[in-house]
Amino acid sequence: MYYPEPITKLIDSFTKLPGIGPKTAARLAFFVLEMKEDDVLDFAKSLVNAKRELTHCTVCGHITDQDPCSICSDQSRDNSVICVVQDPKDVIAMEKMKDFQGKYHVLHGTISPMEGIGPEDINVSTLIERLKDEKVEELILATNPNVEGEATAMYISRLVKPSGLRLTRIAHGLPVGGDLEYADEVTLSKALEGRRDL
Amino acid sequence: MYYPEPITKLIDSFTKLPGIGPKTAARLAFFVLEMKEDDVLDFAKSLVNAKRELTHCTVCGHITDQDPCSICSDQSRDNSVICVVQDPKDVIAMEKMKDFQGKYHVLHGTISPMEGIGPEDINVSTLIERLKDEKVEELILATNPNVEGEATAMYISRLVKPSGLRLTRIAHGLPVGGDLEYADEVTLSKALEGRRDL
Repeated sequence: MYYPEPITKLIDSFTKLPGIGPKTAARLAFFVLEMKEDDVLDFAKSLVNAKRELTHCTVCGHITDQDPCSICSDQSRDNSVICVVQDPKDVIAMEKMKDFQGKYHVLHGTISPMEGIGPEDINVSTLIERLKDEKVEELILATNPNVEGEATAMYISRLVKPSGLRLTRIAHGLPVGGDLEYADEVTLSKALEGRRDL
Repeated sequence: MYYPEPITKLIDSFTKLPGIGPKTAARLAFFVLEMKEDDVLDFAKSLVNAKRELTHCTVCGHITDQDPCSICSDQSRDNSVICVVQDPKDVIAMEKMKDFQGKYHVLHGTISPMEGIGPEDINVSTLIERLKDEKVEELILATNPNVEGEATAMYISRLVKPSGLRLTRIAHGLPVGGDLEYADEVTLSKALEGRRDL
């Protein structure tokens, strides 16, 4: 027994978080001991509240503390465009950009046969329901540009194509501020393939 | 408002921890949402318990959930040697080594005129009291081998020297597994200075 019991437990709790090993966990635990009691109580409360009060929006699947979420219930947004993303964090990233005024649909994952995740394990069926009910004109597939993301986009596009909806995929190419010299071959090839007239 | 309120609060709480920026905090917060509710409750409890149940041992200053701490109240340990360290974490490091069977004294800092920390701001006065009351034969100064640590060791040694107690300082030299080629000059000079007969 190196540490008193309460701190061992706290270190164990921190170790469960991603990217935090035993050394960092010990550092964080000792920091908590030096924090004001009120701040520690706030921290504990915010943990429990976040877990308890947040659910997934029954319409789009985004995390929310009200149902439907603030984006789905926002009447000023464009109902005719739905942007399909993998993850609630991707909605945040899109919202930070401030350019997109449509709605979202969060898949909570991608099709990944290697990990045994099939189409039925992600939030696709509610998307299909939405497309039937809502007046959607365009579906933007904004899954990540990797194998699983592409496969998922392909799967959804095949599923939706027959309905005659406009289907788009976000562009792949050089990131702004990037350098041609250091771009990998696949990105460069995608950038060339997706070139546009000036 | 990008995130629902409960998650914003949780991200803020994580951001207060050392070495955790907004991006990592967001990642951790989203991880918490995916955790089992019981695990989250345990985490919250361990935070509050660690803060509430742990105090500093009135004898040695180490963190503890009982007073005096388990090391101070351990009758099998050698009362004649006290190892003076800066921090509770240093006690843990010493205990992990398993070679030291004496007692400890935790200073909770070092003298640092640059940061306005004087001898009265660290846990020295209780050490002096202990030296009067307990039958101590040796005081090992194990503060860190940097400017503040050396200054603190020097200060304590001047204070205690007149009592005729054996005063020692942990050795400075090459770390085990280290490389002479990559050692800095000061370490190498200390290693040479502290050479021992074979």
